[in-house]
Amino acid sequence: MGTEIVKVSARSMPKLVAGAIAAIIRGGGQAEIQAVGAGATNQAVKAIAIARVYMEAENIDLICRPAFTEITIDGAEKTAIQLMVSRLYDSR
Amino acid sequence: MGTEIVKVSARSMPKLVAGAIAAIIRGGGQAEIQAVGAGATNQAVKAIAIARVYMEAENIDLICRPAFTEITIDGAEKTAIQLMVSRLYDSR
Repeated sequence: MGTEIVKVSARSMPKLVAGAIAAIIRGGGQAEIQAVGAGATNQAVKAIAIARVYMEAENIDLICRPAFTEITIDGAEKTAIQLMVSRLYDSR
Repeated sequence: MGTEIVKVSARSMPKLVAGAIAAIIRGGGQAEIQAVGAGATNQAVKAIAIARVYMEAENIDLICRPAFTEITIDGAEKTAIQLMVSRLYDSR
């Protein structure tokens, strides 16, 4: 399994996003979280913090790598925050 | 060098915070970023994304580990986002 994109908005529920992240990691993939705006980025970070608690119980250390990326929404280019979430020692 | 706390607010300049993170990492430490609220967390994530660009030029892969933490501000307990920033393969 490779990289799965998870789009997060300011209205996303962190616990639900955390469950999606955990499922991707358990499946051997990595999650590429995309967030546009402060509210969305905040929900994304909360989701990763919650997913880290889930994965710690399975002895998995989840890390994230933030970066800027350009994405197209309704034909308009926007700068998004990309948070690559993977398990430690699973470098891709 | 150990862990240095970097407090970030919604008005923090991401480039300045990125410079502080880079200096801590270059000095052999790790940065514990604390942010309260969506605006602060957003600036913190942008700062880490910028610091990652700085460090990539030095062949250092910066990672972060988000978590919730309780901090006291003016005597009141607040839930903050803690982002531990370290270089990859420097696990503490």
